[in-house]
Amino acid sequence: MKPAVILLSGGLDSATVLAVARRDGFACHCLSVDYGQRHRVELELAAKQAKLQGAAEHRVVQIDLRAIGGSALTADIAVPKSGVGADIPITYVPARNTVLLALCLGYSETVEAFDLFIGANAVDYSGYPDCRPEFLSAFESLANVATKAAVEGQGRYRLHAPLLHMTKAEIIRLGTSLGVEYVWTLSCYDPDAHGRACGECDSCRLRTKGFREAGISEATV
Amino acid sequence: MKPAVILLSGGLDSATVLAVARRDGFACHCLSVDYGQRHRVELELAAKQAKLQGAAEHRVVQIDLRAIGGSALTADIAVPKSGVGADIPITYVPARNTVLLALCLGYSETVEAFDLFIGANAVDYSGYPDCRPEFLSAFESLANVATKAAVEGQGRYRLHAPLLHMTKAEIIRLGTSLGVEYVWTLSCYDPDAHGRACGECDSCRLRTKGFREAGISEATV
Repeated sequence: MKPAVILLSGGLDSATVLAVARRDGFACHCLSVDYGQRHRVELELAAKQAKLQGAAEHRVVQIDLRAIGGSALTADIAVPKSGVGADIPITYVPARNTVLLALCLGYSETVEAFDLFIGANAVDYSGYPDCRPEFLSAFESLANVATKAAVEGQGRYRLHAPLLHMTKAEIIRLGTSLGVEYVWTLSCYDPDAHGRACGECDSCRLRTKGFREAGISEATV
Repeated sequence: MKPAVILLSGGLDSATVLAVARRDGFACHCLSVDYGQRHRVELELAAKQAKLQGAAEHRVVQIDLRAIGGSALTADIAVPKSGVGADIPITYVPARNTVLLALCLGYSETVEAFDLFIGANAVDYSGYPDCRPEFLSAFESLANVATKAAVEGQGRYRLHAPLLHMTKAEIIRLGTSLGVEYVWTLSCYDPDAHGRACGECDSCRLRTKGFREAGISEATV
């Protein structure tokens, strides 16, 4: 089996991406990043998904993005709960996906993988700049000049974002057909101390709307 | 003064870059990264340089690249001491500069800077892929589609690598003319417990050759 690196957050999208990569025959090396996010219970769910889905490996890299701050997810700023707006919200973490994909790239070199998977989505999303196709394309170009493996001609990096143009309902239908157990995922930006979703942040709203439109009950999967 | 972010390692090159950015009139926000490197004394020297050179700020981000491994600088692999070869050496840290610049990019958003400085050099260097002009150019392109600040049109990122095409001797002459105190820098990949350079790794060899060719004694600056 060809190795691939999967950026696994513990959320709904990345759990689905892992199932897609498995379906496509990859040996999945999952990377989660503990970046000081409020929703740290995600990390436990990432480990659970890696296990449930038979990943080859799951690693967690610690990085303290609170030293940089600038986001409701990493600094002492309240998570907005009034609905998904038109602007880039304060939950945007400065350069987050650039940092996360850079770590995936480093990991990929150590496991000799050239396929990276990310659950970025540009339909039912919060409007983050680093989820857009032009960002992903620029990162793929960067990967192919950044690494020893690329420069020595061992392979060409491909950044897969299979959910990019899907609605949340389509993602949920796809994952359900692949056997993803969504009960072991969390999408909330601001869960309580017991890991329960707030139900009001952008991410909770997008998730609930997705299950409703998919005609699937959250509790049953 | 316009803000800039300087990637400051505590080595000779980045100390010189800080002096160049100061000369060019920037308010310097310095970022050092504690990535589990063997040569951690660098971080103390980075703080010292930031202070000596009147930086606006100095932050340290912790990230444990040992969770990824794959390098003599972050894993339990010996640092080679037989001289600078033609291949990319084992001291290469997978995707290191991609990770470090991604962190600089995140930091730059929080201080509203669009100018990033890095001490990359493609002349007297170890042959790392992520020090080459094509890498730096690809990263600059990425930065301009990756961030909220760029997408909202607040500015255009510029990645400065003023040492890129200079020899080590030229770098040392430039820094000396700008008052850089090189005695408070360390270039060694494998210093002893007291922070003393080994004198034999690639980086020590390039440094010693640089001072010799510049006609400057290391002990006097």
